[in-house]
Amino acid sequence: MKKNPLLGRDVISMRDFGPAEIRAILDRCRGFENNRKPLLQGKVLANLFFEPSTRTRLSFDSAMKRLGGATIGFSDSISTSISKGESLWDTIRVAEGYCDVMVIRHPAEGSARLAAEATRLPVINGGDGSNQHPTQTLLDLYTLKQRTGRIEGLKVAFVGDLKYGRTVHSLIRSLSHFDARLWLVSPTSLCLPEDFLEDLRDSGTEHHIVDELAAVPDDVDVLYLTRIQKERFVDAIEYERVRNAYQVNPENVARFGAKLTLMHPLPRLNEVHAALDQHPGAAWFDQAHNGVIVRQALLALCLGAA
Amino acid sequence: MKKNPLLGRDVISMRDFGPAEIRAILDRCRGFENNRKPLLQGKVLANLFFEPSTRTRLSFDSAMKRLGGATIGFSDSISTSISKGESLWDTIRVAEGYCDVMVIRHPAEGSARLAAEATRLPVINGGDGSNQHPTQTLLDLYTLKQRTGRIEGLKVAFVGDLKYGRTVHSLIRSLSHFDARLWLVSPTSLCLPEDFLEDLRDSGTEHHIVDELAAVPDDVDVLYLTRIQKERFVDAIEYERVRNAYQVNPENVARFGAKLTLMHPLPRLNEVHAALDQHPGAAWFDQAHNGVIVRQALLALCLGAA
Amino acid sequence: MKKNPLLGRDVISMRDFGPAEIRAILDRCRGFENNRKPLLQGKVLANLFFEPSTRTRLSFDSAMKRLGGATIGFSDSISTSISKGESLWDTIRVAEGYCDVMVIRHPAEGSARLAAEATRLPVINGGDGSNQHPTQTLLDLYTLKQRTGRIEGLKVAFVGDLKYGRTVHSLIRSLSHFDARLWLVSPTSLCLPEDFLEDLRDSGTEHHIVDELAAVPDDVDVLYLTRIQKERFVDAIEYERVRNAYQVNPENVARFGAKLTLMHPLPRLNEVHAALDQHPGAAWFDQAHNGVIVRQALLALCLGAA
Repeated sequence: MKKNPLLGRDVISMRDFGPAEIRAILDRCRGFENNRKPLLQGKVLANLFFEPSTRTRLSFDSAMKRLGGATIGFSDSISTSISKGESLWDTIRVAEGYCDVMVIRHPAEGSARLAAEATRLPVINGGDGSNQHPTQTLLDLYTLKQRTGRIEGLKVAFVGDLKYGRTVHSLIRSLSHFDARLWLVSPTSLCLPEDFLEDLRDSGTEHHIVDELAAVPDDVDVLYLTRIQKERFVDAIEYERVRNAYQVNPENVARFGAKLTLMHPLPRLNEVHAALDQHPGAAWFDQAHNGVIVRQALLALCLGAA
Repeated sequence: MKKNPLLGRDVISMRDFGPAEIRAILDRCRGFENNRKPLLQGKVLANLFFEPSTRTRLSFDSAMKRLGGATIGFSDSISTSISKGESLWDTIRVAEGYCDVMVIRHPAEGSARLAAEATRLPVINGGDGSNQHPTQTLLDLYTLKQRTGRIEGLKVAFVGDLKYGRTVHSLIRSLSHFDARLWLVSPTSLCLPEDFLEDLRDSGTEHHIVDELAAVPDDVDVLYLTRIQKERFVDAIEYERVRNAYQVNPENVARFGAKLTLMHPLPRLNEVHAALDQHPGAAWFDQAHNGVIVRQALLALCLGAA
Repeated sequence: MKKNPLLGRDVISMRDFGPAEIRAILDRCRGFENNRKPLLQGKVLANLFFEPSTRTRLSFDSAMKRLGGATIGFSDSISTSISKGESLWDTIRVAEGYCDVMVIRHPAEGSARLAAEATRLPVINGGDGSNQHPTQTLLDLYTLKQRTGRIEGLKVAFVGDLKYGRTVHSLIRSLSHFDARLWLVSPTSLCLPEDFLEDLRDSGTEHHIVDELAAVPDDVDVLYLTRIQKERFVDAIEYERVRNAYQVNPENVARFGAKLTLMHPLPRLNEVHAALDQHPGAAWFDQAHNGVIVRQALLALCLGAA
């Protein structure tokens, strides 16, 4: 049996894992595709969601229960002791007595790291503000591997809002360790922040900053689409223009061929034409479903049960 | 072993089931009265409640857990991706990866049908707006059978608000397939809507539209009472008058004898005198408890485990 | 096997249990420190929280799941039938069909007793207004025993807000049955209410009403600290003065020695200096963790499974 890459560890940031460790984690995930062994029977997960996130919460909840474990927790901070002024440190130290592993979702950057320091139990970051969301990145990488057979040397175009959204940031950073070639397709106002561009330059990752889908070559492996949020625009007309300019539809996707993989972290508005659900490469629902598989693996590995 | 009437099917509307199928489902329910076999161990139910309904939600939750299964979900749409503008279709497709069966409660008519079309998993309607609430109708029919020994040829008086409330509408429609004779007791302003009356005429169901309990014959089998909601009245005095005129109490119920069955879908305000809880025919708490039994049967049948 | 002190009983108020029964319950708790036997498999707990209390709710939830049982419920009354005007009696009678045991948390004094009268199932009070919170008192007593080896004849100083807060009131009352000697340390505006003082005089319990920590003797066994809430003060300056005067820190605690036990029901603000977490006698997180152990014992005993 291979070494457990997460034994005695937390899952706080993708930066904590080297390329070999990421490969090892993804390898372990495959075993959970059809697993129904109650590996975590008798174990309790605390799902500590200080801000709402139905998708991530339900995905962890399902993962734990698929493995025979139980879940406790809350889905927002309104009804918690936090509203009585309790420190996060105290909340985590108290919760430690209630569970075997914790998932924390919190609006403050660094909160997951703080939680991991407060407790001897394994902590998994379910998203800390605009900072890290490592389980989303792992499920994206897992889906990439499932669809293309590899995570190395992929040609990936990121389309839409590259300025906000840790999902894109974290995946771009991870791909830079795996010899990716990147096309960054966005309006100037929503382009990738300078510090991420600097990282790409530092790591020598080939990347092309463009402002239209037409600039992406036909043989790209993956289009990674994002939600363009109205709130990011002061001007409603500008929002409409951008939204329409970056919508992906059967026509402008046809030239990439049937081997193209289409991804989106969801929820989506109308960045994606409904007809693309029928595209053989449409992977957004697979991404969501793989989220359960990846989180099963993470829970089992952190608890030393896999 | 008898044929499973729900294998590979959804439970969206009572209209989807013929009289023979309804009888078959009710027959299967009986086996769940004392069942504690963990028939659904390893299975996950998603309780997707886009509007609050504590009773229905807890009843399904209990049913699933009594059968050894697990539950995930949410109890209102405030904290879901819906608030980010996600379509119901997408929410259902995502949830599909998290569970084995879904219960959906949604304010929009037709939403449960749409959900059933979006997923290959079985979907049970937990109430879609003012439209359908089939599990309530099934638990009412089950209680009728438990109390009177049959569902055919019953004499049933419906009392109170017959205009609003899918519970009464759906039960009336179902009883029309079982040779019921009906007394529809309400103020004119709250009488059964015309399209339901038309259905009763079309099916040749004997029915009497009356405006006082005194018009109901002594040998009626069942009084089905309803909550008269203040919100339905513009005039507070008119509300008080109606409420008092249709209150059922030990005096006005005495003439029906001890074999009378008294039903109410709950919650109740003061349509029912508190002393009637002691009436041998008072079945409201049985209805609630039978809800768990019926929902156990539906979950097990939909999942092919019974 | 010893007699089950809770068989067929509810846990509503500490007043329902004599000293011998309290000792018997605490004895039974010890067996749950390392228990992972699924004693409550197939059982369902209804966690009926009509007002938010994350800590108590999660603690019961964890206790039930650690014993292999399942939990249903709600965490506030907003989304319940209560908002439709349903009586507590009806809510409890309905819930009776969904579960095997209930925990109720409700803002109204006496609500837990009413619930216990409504149902034949065992009911545990999770806090009814400013009245009773017996499981908090039992976990405090359990922690006292764990730390000092006994609950009899202890010298305990209560510090801070002794006027509000059932936690302190209930523990003081319980200790008065076990030959405690008490120091009641508070500003005059927050001293123990007269009826509790009267009880102490009636039971002949030695007690000293003082207004500064300096008046507590060096050989006290326990300092029980409390949260001083800003809302209790009309004057912000007075609040600051009191808060600072009653803060416990490494300096003013040093004279009590290393055998001192320091307790706090949590959440805490800054009544306790952060450095005291390192004090060998700091028991606040133990109290929280013991809450799960004590509640496991109560659930198992009430259900006749221990």
